[in-house]
Amino acid sequence: MILEIAVLTIRPGSEDAFEAGVRAAVPLFRRARGCHGMELRRSVESPGRYLLHVRWETLEDHTVHFRGSADFQEWRRLVGDFFEGPPAVEHAAVAVAGF
Amino acid sequence: MILEIAVLTIRPGSEDAFEAGVRAAVPLFRRARGCHGMELRRSVESPGRYLLHVRWETLEDHTVHFRGSADFQEWRRLVGDFFEGPPAVEHAAVAVAGF
Repeated sequence: MILEIAVLTIRPGSEDAFEAGVRAAVPLFRRARGCHGMELRRSVESPGRYLLHVRWETLEDHTVHFRGSADFQEWRRLVGDFFEGPPAVEHAAVAVAGF
Repeated sequence: MILEIAVLTIRPGSEDAFEAGVRAAVPLFRRARGCHGMELRRSVESPGRYLLHVRWETLEDHTVHFRGSADFQEWRRLVGDFFEGPPAVEHAAVAVAGF
């Protein structure tokens, strides 16, 4: 399982509309191949900064299948106008499962 | 519920020892006031870069109670020597729960 972490900086004043766009996009992730869940978190220290966490079965489920899909275009249509700049995206695998 | 996200860059060659230190530290988090879980993830793109995710009941459970505890000193004793630089720590609250 791979966690996608996208850091999204949102134009000031667009936070509510951005969050509504993400809520509208939940079904896109729900039906995406290999997607096991997603959530959007908002930074406490920098309220214009959001972290999108998406759990994927494999790296390629995100980088190839989702990014190559029409639903990715729909995702960008729903939220892309609110981005202050390009998202910073990385992926991470569990090293210590913890609890 | 607040997610602590600590970005930890680890000295090259120390990754296995660092991961063992985090495993040894799991009980510290398990018994910490307001701690609901933790996991360590390793970046796919930058293998020296780790993300520690800790779920806290409140911000203060991390910033006041845990950081002020003897167990925080023990945490730093277990893993601090492996840090390449100071950790970057932020906190985030759920904005869209997703699935």
